[in-house]
Amino acid sequence: MFKTIEWTPDGVLMLDQRLLPLEEVYVTLADYREVATAIRDMLIRGAPAIGVAAAMGVAIGLREAARETTEEARAARFEDVCQHLAATRPTAVNLFWAIDRMRRKFASLGRLDWAERVAAMEQEAVAIHQEDVECCRRIGRHGQALIADNSGVLTHCNAGALATGGYGTALGVIRAAAENGKRLHVFADETRPYLQGARLTAWELHQLGVPVSVITDNMSGHFMARGEIQAVVVGADRIAANGDTANKIGTFMVAVLAAYHHIPFYVAAPFSTVDFTMSSGRGIPIEERNPREVTHLRETQLTPDGVGIRNPAFDVTPNHLITAIITDQGVARPPFVESLGRLHAL
Amino acid sequence: MFKTIEWTPDGVLMLDQRLLPLEEVYVTLADYREVATAIRDMLIRGAPAIGVAAAMGVAIGLREAARETTEEARAARFEDVCQHLAATRPTAVNLFWAIDRMRRKFASLGRLDWAERVAAMEQEAVAIHQEDVECCRRIGRHGQALIADNSGVLTHCNAGALATGGYGTALGVIRAAAENGKRLHVFADETRPYLQGARLTAWELHQLGVPVSVITDNMSGHFMARGEIQAVVVGADRIAANGDTANKIGTFMVAVLAAYHHIPFYVAAPFSTVDFTMSSGRGIPIEERNPREVTHLRETQLTPDGVGIRNPAFDVTPNHLITAIITDQGVARPPFVESLGRLHAL
Repeated sequence: MFKTIEWTPDGVLMLDQRLLPLEEVYVTLADYREVATAIRDMLIRGAPAIGVAAAMGVAIGLREAARETTEEARAARFEDVCQHLAATRPTAVNLFWAIDRMRRKFASLGRLDWAERVAAMEQEAVAIHQEDVECCRRIGRHGQALIADNSGVLTHCNAGALATGGYGTALGVIRAAAENGKRLHVFADETRPYLQGARLTAWELHQLGVPVSVITDNMSGHFMARGEIQAVVVGADRIAANGDTANKIGTFMVAVLAAYHHIPFYVAAPFSTVDFTMSSGRGIPIEERNPREVTHLRETQLTPDGVGIRNPAFDVTPNHLITAIITDQGVARPPFVESLGRLHAL
Repeated sequence: MFKTIEWTPDGVLMLDQRLLPLEEVYVTLADYREVATAIRDMLIRGAPAIGVAAAMGVAIGLREAARETTEEARAARFEDVCQHLAATRPTAVNLFWAIDRMRRKFASLGRLDWAERVAAMEQEAVAIHQEDVECCRRIGRHGQALIADNSGVLTHCNAGALATGGYGTALGVIRAAAENGKRLHVFADETRPYLQGARLTAWELHQLGVPVSVITDNMSGHFMARGEIQAVVVGADRIAANGDTANKIGTFMVAVLAAYHHIPFYVAAPFSTVDFTMSSGRGIPIEERNPREVTHLRETQLTPDGVGIRNPAFDVTPNHLITAIITDQGVARPPFVESLGRLHAL
């Protein structure tokens, strides 16, 4: 089975997701700047996975910071590393969460000698990775109970092992349901422009032996109307305190369609995806990516020269369209401001 | 300016739409079988345009039928030609409407000598073409009044000059509004898998000088939520007597989203698109096309081998989601079973 990301003595090993599903190529990144570029260029993507990658990037960067000659210069370089990694992608909160956790760990190490600090920070990054996998398994256990036997399940983008440390959030729910003997057929939206559904979700589920059909993003309403879809499960890049959820562009449309057809719409994410500093989704920054993702597919030009292109990478689904938010801490139901608050207090 | 289709002494001239927007290549088809293949392979597409192409194909086929030696053999060959052209694409009613009109014309010619019959049938095909262009201009005149100045207008697929004899239906409304001095910004859904929006609508509007931005099919909800879209205008492949409308896959989703955001959703089509033999959209056959349209983009493979693929080419938008149907006979408002019936009686 593939590995999304792994800490190695030589640096961060990751699967280059841009080449899937046709090529399975691994790269090892030994410089934190390369890790930042890999996150920005979506060699690795998915909110939990970029959190893990950023933590490992911080750990690598600390090695470089340790080569400075004064304590102050080392601390300053460490902060540069954190800021460089944080400047890669604005929407997913896991990135900032993971970097902040690494900062707090670093602060807790006080005046340990530097070799020990570097080793402790590497261990912290590995711990974040391991905890993420365990977190996904808990999400799967909580969520699988919501999926009925003989269901058609729609998912958008990729919230699978490839988007996390391993196992997956939305696909974790689907995997856990399949492991519990439920017969499912998954519809994977292809998820333009980056095609995470067509390339990654289809590949992952096919490897796991879960039946999957790829559809284009404009087809899910048709299959809902025909009664072929009984549930929707998606991931999340950031969840506001009131349950409003930022996720891959197109998630909001699927949520509106699910509500129209009275189909349950589930968000599955680590509890750390909830950003309690955001009272609603209105304040969540939406990344606009390079128009070339829309205008070209690899080298093939799709659009005429000179026309406008818009490329928001995420949208916000308002809380009233969400049936439940499945986290490692448990399942939150509306009103989310209360249910998420209760889970937070646990 | 480009020509979508034209009758020439050598056969049917048409622009190969598969190569747009990068190449503008015309072909001349002198055999009705080539015309059928061009329709099936979407060298030409769009409900009114395939009606025109089929009529011209019938006219060409009659030349071949005329070479038979008996009146009976000629009539039988003519019927073969009609059936061959009718078997190309099942959803758009204009195809069957145009072929039936050619059949009726042929029957009306009685025992005229064959050279005269061939000439009369060619004139009939040219008349269908000319009437379609005039029809689109009337649709534009009726529809432009519904579009406010300073509007963002979303359209899906291509219902422009390229989808008709010329001028366009949904894009005819947009063109007419622009020609009336209204300042518009058009959002063109790229329209996977065939990319009619990204390739054709963007190219057409850019040539006309109407500002246009291409978005992927999963973005329209986001821009509606942000208040950037004030109206939706789409074409139609077949409209049932109650107003239910079959159109390019994804149209239904846009209609649900427009209703959710209280944005008017307009269908623009020749009145001949209304199929009064269908009481509702439930009976409209939905074409399923080759999975390769989803799995590959030109030579680039997008999906892993071995996964399921679904590729319905159309969906049905229920009448309650449609604000008005704009036809050459006038604008129909709900309840459509009455308003379309009144226009039918004119």
